[in-house]
Amino acid sequence: MARSTDEFRLIDNYFKGLTSQSQVEVGIGDDAAIINSSGDYQTVVASDTLVESVHFPASAQAEQIASRALCVNLSDMAAMGAEPKWFTLALTLPSKKTTDLWLQGFSRGLAKIAKQFNIALIGGDTTAGPLTISITVLGEVPKGQALVRSGAKVGDNIYVSGDLGDGAAALHSIINEAHIGSDSSSRLLERLYCPQPQIELGIGLRDYASACIDISDGLIADLGHICNASGVSAEIDSQQLPIDIEVKQQFKQQSLQWAISGGDDYQLCFSVTAGRHKEFEQWAAACKFAVTKIGNMVAMEDNQSTVRLDGQTISLSTGGYNHFANNT
Amino acid sequence: MARSTDEFRLIDNYFKGLTSQSQVEVGIGDDAAIINSSGDYQTVVASDTLVESVHFPASAQAEQIASRALCVNLSDMAAMGAEPKWFTLALTLPSKKTTDLWLQGFSRGLAKIAKQFNIALIGGDTTAGPLTISITVLGEVPKGQALVRSGAKVGDNIYVSGDLGDGAAALHSIINEAHIGSDSSSRLLERLYCPQPQIELGIGLRDYASACIDISDGLIADLGHICNASGVSAEIDSQQLPIDIEVKQQFKQQSLQWAISGGDDYQLCFSVTAGRHKEFEQWAAACKFAVTKIGNMVAMEDNQSTVRLDGQTISLSTGGYNHFANNT
Repeated sequence: MARSTDEFRLIDNYFKGLTSQSQVEVGIGDDAAIINSSGDYQTVVASDTLVESVHFPASAQAEQIASRALCVNLSDMAAMGAEPKWFTLALTLPSKKTTDLWLQGFSRGLAKIAKQFNIALIGGDTTAGPLTISITVLGEVPKGQALVRSGAKVGDNIYVSGDLGDGAAALHSIINEAHIGSDSSSRLLERLYCPQPQIELGIGLRDYASACIDISDGLIADLGHICNASGVSAEIDSQQLPIDIEVKQQFKQQSLQWAISGGDDYQLCFSVTAGRHKEFEQWAAACKFAVTKIGNMVAMEDNQSTVRLDGQTISLSTGGYNHFANNT
Repeated sequence: MARSTDEFRLIDNYFKGLTSQSQVEVGIGDDAAIINSSGDYQTVVASDTLVESVHFPASAQAEQIASRALCVNLSDMAAMGAEPKWFTLALTLPSKKTTDLWLQGFSRGLAKIAKQFNIALIGGDTTAGPLTISITVLGEVPKGQALVRSGAKVGDNIYVSGDLGDGAAALHSIINEAHIGSDSSSRLLERLYCPQPQIELGIGLRDYASACIDISDGLIADLGHICNASGVSAEIDSQQLPIDIEVKQQFKQQSLQWAISGGDDYQLCFSVTAGRHKEFEQWAAACKFAVTKIGNMVAMEDNQSTVRLDGQTISLSTGGYNHFANNT
């Protein structure tokens, strides 16, 4: 579709500053964008949609919504080991939000993340309707070097980046208006609305990881996707799971559950060949990446991928997890 | 974000058949898709969103919604002279629509168009919420050959493809339940829900057109975008506008207005250097493309782009049109 007059005004007023980048031949303002990619690279494409009251509370501020929408999309690039370059934005907006204040906040949130990761807005669409943000991120990866889910082998070590359970703890705190100390509370809010995509780690992992995924549905579910795609099973140790000390103290009952199935963490879960784990850990330490070994890939039993936590099998019948069951 | 279990089930059940294509290295089922583009091509990217009750009536069938959503996105590829290759789908769906019947219809509508234009679904996202379809189409164009809006010159001939006003006539007929004969009525419905993107014409126009746009907002508004981008004005002749004979007869009062400002036609409007218009028209006739010369590009007055219809100036103050005014 050609762009309508109102869209031009919206783009000119709020999003024009986000559009410049060297490989963009035609950016916003034509029927489509044109980008120049090098023949030595593959193009990586991911889309994600955020809907009000489903993916963020109706009380969330425009800047928070924008930064979260872009961060969760960039997290997919991190999981592929790709360098993000460009994005399109489809913004569906109820008329009550079409105010200078809201749009400026939204644009500020996008700009903050776009600048941090040096990515350019190359197109999009604004329409009237219930608040929905749909972003497509495009990135590049040198040919054949992308991280996929299907490469894990029996014996590989399993790692995660950062802390687990922060996303669920933040959501719990917002819903219940729980305060766990102002510093901690603002750390959690930042983790929910601005979950830092692990782009640099993902790029570095091209040299080390046999499989990789980002944790959005929860560790068990997402690790289960790697297991299913790779034809292996996983054994993890709950004692090793990295959980923020304040979250652990404040939410004694829930923190472990959140770490394994809470979701919304946007950390990376990946596997590294056992023979290279020392080399990998030295590299990660030198780069100051927080990574934690949480378990190992093991052989499937009865041709079925499973994830075992402290010896208990968790069913992965449909790619996610259904229930906890004794390992009988 | 990683894909959730429910999404996997949706994709497996309804969309998996749409995903194969030779240049797709990793399609649906990982964190992102990976595509191989050749170094001789540029990547062309366009996004468009359709919202229920805004872009299609709530009574529209799933198959119609899907085909319209994909067609209007492909129309942007046509306007760029690009060959569409891949698309992502962000489908936000209220729970009452999450039925086999609805999803099968939607998938059928997508598949029909995807097959016709040989494009592959490479990713996407399904979420709960008000019905919103956001599609990003990616295509390719040989380096430097894309059709943009900014190349029109004084003296160029202005052409449109197909008929104008069908989109508005169809919408009017649906809203007013007007019947203009069953054949004609089904032709109009087809034009609204399955507006054929002019891909082949767009590719051919790489050799002829100096500027090109697709008509979604209406001829005057979209031709105005070309004029603004190119720094020229346009003069068009209402007698030359191609309007379907039955639409003209049935809607005597409205058909001209619909042809110039109705929108939703998804035909191409483009300019061709005057010296090549015979050659172009012979080529178009040989290829059986319906194209009509409707006017000429002329010089701006007072450094202002205008579109004149039968000598009357139409203001283009903000890229679209505001009102009809006498040419004083």
